[in-house]
Amino acid sequence: MKWPITTIGFDADDTLWHNENLFEDHHKKYCELLSEYHDSETVEKVLYETEMQNLELFGYGIKGFTLSCIETAIHLTNGEIRPEEIQHIIDHCRYMLSHPVELFDDVETVLEKLSSKFRLILVTKGDLRDQERKIAKSGLAAHFDHTEVVSDKNVESYARVLQRSRVPVEQFVMIGNSLKSDILPVLNLGGHGIHIPYRITWEHERVESTPHEHDNFYQLESIAQLPDLIETIVANNDD
Amino acid sequence: MKWPITTIGFDADDTLWHNENLFEDHHKKYCELLSEYHDSETVEKVLYETEMQNLELFGYGIKGFTLSCIETAIHLTNGEIRPEEIQHIIDHCRYMLSHPVELFDDVETVLEKLSSKFRLILVTKGDLRDQERKIAKSGLAAHFDHTEVVSDKNVESYARVLQRSRVPVEQFVMIGNSLKSDILPVLNLGGHGIHIPYRITWEHERVESTPHEHDNFYQLESIAQLPDLIETIVANNDD
Repeated sequence: MKWPITTIGFDADDTLWHNENLFEDHHKKYCELLSEYHDSETVEKVLYETEMQNLELFGYGIKGFTLSCIETAIHLTNGEIRPEEIQHIIDHCRYMLSHPVELFDDVETVLEKLSSKFRLILVTKGDLRDQERKIAKSGLAAHFDHTEVVSDKNVESYARVLQRSRVPVEQFVMIGNSLKSDILPVLNLGGHGIHIPYRITWEHERVESTPHEHDNFYQLESIAQLPDLIETIVANNDD
Repeated sequence: MKWPITTIGFDADDTLWHNENLFEDHHKKYCELLSEYHDSETVEKVLYETEMQNLELFGYGIKGFTLSCIETAIHLTNGEIRPEEIQHIIDHCRYMLSHPVELFDDVETVLEKLSSKFRLILVTKGDLRDQERKIAKSGLAAHFDHTEVVSDKNVESYARVLQRSRVPVEQFVMIGNSLKSDILPVLNLGGHGIHIPYRITWEHERVESTPHEHDNFYQLESIAQLPDLIETIVANNDD
């Protein structure tokens, strides 16, 4: 017998609820705002470069993203942007932060089913308060044993989360839409990863190849398929 | 015999290292920036109002503060502020985020002494990544069993931290410079609080009165006095 599965970790943004669509919408409006100065392609390219330069210092999340948007706008317009346009960028930050949480179909049923047999934990990254607010608004908090908001998702942060939760990694399955943040670090540690792609993947989260050959890697089209797959993994581990 | 003391919680900013002095310096520069439009008193007043309006959505920390500074500057200048001046505000955000950590005197000796007898945990609020970076830069992480970055410090968040750390509140002492965030919630839960005031207290952290009459409340002038006080508390609890 291999290790039993005891604990399931869930990413939140774009795994349990829509998130990247808000950024997509923001990018559209942002490109319109700067359209008298540059084409969309240039705006997107320079914004992404600014975000990457600021990532180490600002971290993930809407507030750091907004600061990068303001900087990029000043830079790309040679300081010609009008302060009221900068105010629009901040207003849109506020709009994103206060946006309702739109759950994916079947999420509640799936979590209810799984939480009767497994310990569920939520592992997210981004602005602490923003993540906490979304969890509260989602109405899903009661299904989870606890929530971990981390500043980055990598081998070290998962090891820390599992150690604090007293879960051996062999008993752990992580579910998420990002191969880079949700799946690969957990596979590297010796756990299981179930990838459920979202319609949009942020450039920074893209990886070159999918680890199809890895024994502990699985891919699903929708979260509704999750309970059956978990049952299969558990049965295989019992062999 | 009362409960033994097993765990000591430390606030970080303005308890282990200087922080509010960076904001003080920022306020000075910010008032200078806007001095052709308004006097310092008006600038400070409107900035604080904006911060308080944004607090629920932006949370604590330098990035949210910076967004409030930009908004206030646009508002107070009727949109006359120049984009390069807004860039200065963002540059100063970057300066604050990358500033070296300046430890208070005696902090290392005190933590080393206490960590041999007690479990030490760090409980801070603010931007997740910024707090983690400061902890890393401080060189103090090894003294702590673990670190909790919370979005706000209140009765609920301390209860959650203690539950996750499996510490009964009666065995817990919290050390910090803010009565509102570090001391009162812990006293309300039934723990001990040791207040070590800093030279500057942010308006939002001020409380009307100090709980001198509370049995579990103590006040010190400097962290160097902490080991002796802890010893006294432990001895009294053993009576």
